Amino acid sequence: MEPTQGDPTPTSYGVGARIALHPMSDRFVDIILGALAEADAVRGGLATRTGAVSTFVGGDEADLLRYLSTLIGAATRRADGAHLAVSVLLSRGCPGEVTCDLRSGPWASTTPLEAEPTGVIARAEWSLYPLLDGGADADHMEPIMAAIDRAKESGLFDGSDHYVTRLHGDVADILALVTAAWRDVGAHVQHVTTHLSFSINSPTQEPS
Amino acid sequence: MEPTQGDPTPTSYGVGARIALHPMSDRFVDIILGALAEADAVRGGLATRTGAVSTFVGGDEADLLRYLSTLIGAATRRADGAHLAVSVLLSRGCPGEVTCDLRSGPWASTTPLEAEPTGVIARAEWSLYPLLDGGADADHMEPIMAAIDRAKESGLFDGSDHYVTRLHGDVADILALVTAAWRDVGAHVQHVTTHLSFSINSPTQEPS
Repeated sequence: MEPTQGDPTPTSYGVGARIALHPMSDRFVDIILGALAEADAVRGGLATRTGAVSTFVGGDEADLLRYLSTLIGAATRRADGAHLAVSVLLSRGCPGEVTCDLRSGPWASTTPLEAEPTGVIARAEWSLYPLLDGGADADHMEPIMAAIDRAKESGLFDGSDHYVTRLHGDVADILALVTAAWRDVGAHVQHVTTHLSFSINSPTQEPS
Repeated sequence: MEPTQGDPTPTSYGVGARIALHPMSDRFVDIILGALAEADAVRGGLATRTGAVSTFVGGDEADLLRYLSTLIGAATRRADGAHLAVSVLLSRGCPGEVTCDLRSGPWASTTPLEAEPTGVIARAEWSLYPLLDGGADADHMEPIMAAIDRAKESGLFDGSDHYVTRLHGDVADILALVTAAWRDVGAHVQHVTTHLSFSINSPTQEPS
């Protein structure tokens, strides 16, 4: 890794998200389009583009956090009790679509990451991927273990399962934890991604 | 990385998947439970456990491929034209829930990975994560670029977008491509994960 050579912008550094809303209801089109329109009010300077499978959102972490939290809150209200699953992918440090030729070294902002509670309680599965390259003492599990400890301290930790950490709590708190953990690993590792799957209003008897 | 010291088993090596079916229909409970019951017929020696957010499936790659393809095909038939989204996570080389203390070095089977066509055409977004540790010349983008080239050769490549490669084709062919790419990176990198999001029967006008 090379040292930071001036601060990149979120766009030049490839900071962004992909999100897909999956309301398990015959009204899914209205729920998705209505929630996207509602979240547009807090889009601010974020770039957004909805594709066939998910919606891309690019911009800084605080804006992403507010947008994603608002979007999921809006979809949940519009689902009106129907089961809703949401997939979120966050990525940083690899701005090209198929190349990562950024040469500025690891960089992360330090602005506070806070989100208003949504009132929506969710279960989630979370995985964090620090994509290291060379380095004699590199250990990609070290930042993962630190993030799991952080989840435990947050009160949102709901257990570990194969390949994922389970979280339980307000959607905004879960997003704030995950966004901060992903952003902070980025201070030491250039290319970091994280995947988060929410389950809201599930009729399944939740395993304890 | 240490050299291989005898072949691990898929279970000891942590080879497995998590899958979540999201039928966007009021009938989602029947579709999901019916598809899981139907896929049980091809479960063979795989370990399965359904949690609050997704279902874990552990075992070797060929069995996983057959199971996942059968499950998605069954869910699509039961959805009967309704929109269905499916999230798949494959992981290998990190068998513990929160630790990766495996010490056998990179290992991958070489059995052929083939799946009967399902007749279900899907769009998908795919990302592949080789989780490297030390190594002076390590470059985590190298296996990712090789996998994208492989997608292009397969005829399933549908473009690149931020953080994902787009695929389009029969669900079984997409799963076979992704499973093989993930497995084959595993011959050189111990811990490898991959995420795949399918969209089936979407009413959205697909961007070309």
